[in-house]
Amino acid sequence: MERHFDQELAELKEALLRMASLAEQDVAQALKALVQRDGVLAKRVDADDRLLDQLEVEIDDRCIKLLALRQPIAKDLRFIAMGMKISNDLERIGDEAVNIAHRTEELNKEPPLKPLVDIPRMAEIVRGMIRDALDAFVYEKPDVARQVVTRDEDVDKLNRQLHRELTSFMIEDPHTITRALNLMNVAHNLERIGDHATNIAEEIVYLYEARDIRHQKE
Amino acid sequence: MERHFDQELAELKEALLRMASLAEQDVAQALKALVQRDGVLAKRVDADDRLLDQLEVEIDDRCIKLLALRQPIAKDLRFIAMGMKISNDLERIGDEAVNIAHRTEELNKEPPLKPLVDIPRMAEIVRGMIRDALDAFVYEKPDVARQVVTRDEDVDKLNRQLHRELTSFMIEDPHTITRALNLMNVAHNLERIGDHATNIAEEIVYLYEARDIRHQKE
Repeated sequence: MERHFDQELAELKEALLRMASLAEQDVAQALKALVQRDGVLAKRVDADDRLLDQLEVEIDDRCIKLLALRQPIAKDLRFIAMGMKISNDLERIGDEAVNIAHRTEELNKEPPLKPLVDIPRMAEIVRGMIRDALDAFVYEKPDVARQVVTRDEDVDKLNRQLHRELTSFMIEDPHTITRALNLMNVAHNLERIGDHATNIAEEIVYLYEARDIRHQKE
Repeated sequence: MERHFDQELAELKEALLRMASLAEQDVAQALKALVQRDGVLAKRVDADDRLLDQLEVEIDDRCIKLLALRQPIAKDLRFIAMGMKISNDLERIGDEAVNIAHRTEELNKEPPLKPLVDIPRMAEIVRGMIRDALDAFVYEKPDVARQVVTRDEDVDKLNRQLHRELTSFMIEDPHTITRALNLMNVAHNLERIGDHATNIAEEIVYLYEARDIRHQKE
């Protein structure tokens, strides 16, 4: 029985890692589609998201069954409870990637507004946050997760900066309005991906330290 | 012991209901502040949100303890697991209300762009969704929760319609750009509140029917 439960927990961890790498890949592909103006790739992001939706439902089901049948305590219990939260955040990261893909399809209807600099930078940061949160999870390093949380401010700053810059574009030349709005949306989607990566990092701190570090900024 | 556990579950339910009514009140106040251009009320929404943050942390802690000490099964287990999810969605509804309050403070720096019609309508719908999700929870009526899910499409439609209308304003007169952007943000915040109310409704269907109805639209 003991051994079997360990096996089940290992399988849950594996499912979460698969989901995390899919979510990060979705973000990478959505950005590649945006930068390279690749409508086919954008459509693929949309299709791939179904898999994340499925995995979320499967992981929740698995967690509820483990809670019912194994009646875990302490770290095992925190792992299962956080597993449900982490899968939810990963699924939402996938949704944001889909939104970026949709914006890309809109943006492809007009010539490029300007070379993309800050958006790829934001994307690099949030992808790094997802990867590091994942590492913190795999190698049981809450300190790495704590560092992820601090990086969210950089993402928010870039988002605000882009918002100002794109607003100036719009005011100077109304022909840029639809494109600027689509790019603002993309920046906002990336900011939200940063928020979800932050949530995951907080969930990992809770998993390994049994300490709830949410809402401490305010 | 039996009786004591029932008592704990009743307290959890009460905490969730308190949180839900606070979240709905935050949305109502944010909208009132917006429509009446009331900066003082907008600031109060921001302050009130701390309470939702606190309640979320308390409810999670309560749920984890119940899972560890009571080792619930079947409906009790689903109730506790969904309790964690519902409180998370309610906390995020509070965050969206805070965003609306911040937009209101920005909007108050300029004269009104136009009479607000669709935004108050969106707000009415999403507040109704929160209230009905709550009723479904209290009176154990998954059918009411299912109806909440169907209403999300109306909110999305109004959001798209507003987006188009405000884009036209911006194109016709660049002086409206900052105000139109702020109003677009408010509409987007309301759309997200509708999404969270939908999540809560889906969680309530799962609680009472043990059936996961998420991701069935796609």
